[in-house]
Amino acid sequence: MIINPENVPNRTTTIYPQEFKSLVLGRVKKAVGNAAGLKNFGVNLVTLAPGSCSALRHWHTRQDEFIYVLEGEVTLVTNEGAQILQPGMMAGFPAGEDNGHHLVNRSQAAVVYLEIGDRTADDEAHYPDNDLMARASADGWILTHKDGTLYES
Amino acid sequence: MIINPENVPNRTTTIYPQEFKSLVLGRVKKAVGNAAGLKNFGVNLVTLAPGSCSALRHWHTRQDEFIYVLEGEVTLVTNEGAQILQPGMMAGFPAGEDNGHHLVNRSQAAVVYLEIGDRTADDEAHYPDNDLMARASADGWILTHKDGTLYES
Repeated sequence: MIINPENVPNRTTTIYPQEFKSLVLGRVKKAVGNAAGLKNFGVNLVTLAPGSCSALRHWHTRQDEFIYVLEGEVTLVTNEGAQILQPGMMAGFPAGEDNGHHLVNRSQAAVVYLEIGDRTADDEAHYPDNDLMARASADGWILTHKDGTLYES
Repeated sequence: MIINPENVPNRTTTIYPQEFKSLVLGRVKKAVGNAAGLKNFGVNLVTLAPGSCSALRHWHTRQDEFIYVLEGEVTLVTNEGAQILQPGMMAGFPAGEDNGHHLVNRSQAAVVYLEIGDRTADDEAHYPDNDLMARASADGWILTHKDGTLYES
């Protein structure tokens, strides 16, 4: 089925603990894959306002990720440093590769990209720059400090 | 890792039996997800020359599919008939939904799109318009007539 993103709700919420929420304040996701009824992977159309991040820098143990830049100029930060991506550029982040990544909009204009990720069970997300760990459970992500203690939500 | 599609080989082959090969002669795929080392789903950057199809009209029993149009004007054919997709338009095809789909380039210019599909095991592809069935096996797709007899390859 054809998906018109104008008919897909904007999601601006985050599961991050309070101290990290401001980093993704300018992030708007439209779950266009879910809107089409897909279950095996997600496809989101994401807009980042200037100053906003896609996520904290992280990598997944079991889930693959891929992004394709549609509009604007966005900075990809990995262990290799900062690299600028322009429309038509793309990047993939294989499961289990210990190289934290995120996108940061350091420009003065909105950035729009597609993000794709699968839903393999028993996934974990690791955050090299922050005192945060995430573990997938049947009830959603469980976020803890690196010592395993829960965040107050 | 950033993927430059110029460094990803063009794939123009098809597993279709001889009598169907001409329909996808003008189709060029770059497996950009594989190039990034992804295993859970595939992302292909596909170019269709005028007159070419993405595939025979089909649907999958277990694998989800999603497409996003980047350049040109392409015709999506489903049980609902023909619908024209322009750049920035997208469509998803959930596993198990008995509604064959394919993209046909009925324009005079090249069409470029992203296609995403997962790799759930024990998948089958059904082709409502052709005497063809496809079943995934450990060694790849097995193509048969609808009565189960193999095609000569």
